[in-house]
Amino acid sequence: MSHDASTADLFGIAPTVPSVAGQRFTAKLSRLLIADGEGFATRDVERLEVTLDGVPGDRHEGVARPADSRVPWYPRGAPIRNSRQVTILAPDELDEIARRLGVAQVKPEWIGSNMVLEGIPRLTQLPPGTRLHFPGGAALAVEAENMPCRHAGKAVGAFYPDMEGMDVAFVKAAKGLRGVVAWVERAGEIVAGCEVSIRVPAQRIWVR
Amino acid sequence: MSHDASTADLFGIAPTVPSVAGQRFTAKLSRLLIADGEGFATRDVERLEVTLDGVPGDRHEGVARPADSRVPWYPRGAPIRNSRQVTILAPDELDEIARRLGVAQVKPEWIGSNMVLEGIPRLTQLPPGTRLHFPGGAALAVEAENMPCRHAGKAVGAFYPDMEGMDVAFVKAAKGLRGVVAWVERAGEIVAGCEVSIRVPAQRIWVR
Repeated sequence: MSHDASTADLFGIAPTVPSVAGQRFTAKLSRLLIADGEGFATRDVERLEVTLDGVPGDRHEGVARPADSRVPWYPRGAPIRNSRQVTILAPDELDEIARRLGVAQVKPEWIGSNMVLEGIPRLTQLPPGTRLHFPGGAALAVEAENMPCRHAGKAVGAFYPDMEGMDVAFVKAAKGLRGVVAWVERAGEIVAGCEVSIRVPAQRIWVR
Repeated sequence: MSHDASTADLFGIAPTVPSVAGQRFTAKLSRLLIADGEGFATRDVERLEVTLDGVPGDRHEGVARPADSRVPWYPRGAPIRNSRQVTILAPDELDEIARRLGVAQVKPEWIGSNMVLEGIPRLTQLPPGTRLHFPGGAALAVEAENMPCRHAGKAVGAFYPDMEGMDVAFVKAAKGLRGVVAWVERAGEIVAGCEVSIRVPAQRIWVR
């Protein structure tokens, strides 16, 4: 981490604006899944051929999507570009959600996961613009942190019928741990178990 | 700027990882332009009806684009999602480029600008994921800083025929000042001179 002299006027007296250079490393795609059934439950597949529209047959496929409650500044249903084609989760973050909820586990396939990636600490905090490159040539771009919703919480609650209020509890417990959503930058085949090359862009805190 | 306790394990002993909350403010769209002629020179228009494909008739229109030298990790010409539909510049940054080059001015229409925005300090450093909302309902998402290239430098040099090596000089002088590129999140009409609502997402430096 370094300090960017060109932004030294930001905070008045002797401010420091942190920045970091781009980072590259590899992670492992431990599971690959598709939401092609009821609701947003997903099931494992060995391989997927993603396109610029996303995952063929997946409920989040599409170059556009209707605006929903996640983007309340747009009229409900207005077509917007779909930057939420792929849902990515990390096993250590799911474990932490389960711990906070006091349950044995929260499985990725319960809450719409398309990919489980191992080897990325604090996956949910990966910056927007991070690229994921797959051996077959496919590439994804991280849109943003996935904000937990009550629908996912309800899906988790269905596996713990003795617990009440899981929908609301999940929203709180999963904050900052629910992974990221991404869009397909380049089409190609993705195979479960493969290595994924991660490129995190240079970062710099911007303050007006 | 605050420190995020949840990332307190990042650097070993008592580390601090800076973060800032989301920011909202307004800017002014002082000029609106289109590249519908030769090369990437642009011309002023009073209004544009942008779509999810970008600016109709503009050379950067398209839901996809062929991979070029900016993304050398993809095979040249491979179709990738077009996140560079709109080029946005700031007048104060152009002035600084001109000063560094020792020329009277660098005009936005020489180097492919679709929009000139006033009121955003260090526009080029706006974080990826920043949204620009226009009064008619259209919205753009910032992809990234636009890295200066020799083609743009050559275009500037054409207006200063007595100066040599402008293509290379521009690449150096415009680093960190060449604005940002963006994609259309929601279609709609955009009118020159309008106010633009800027939403900068919460930021957090991620270090592996």
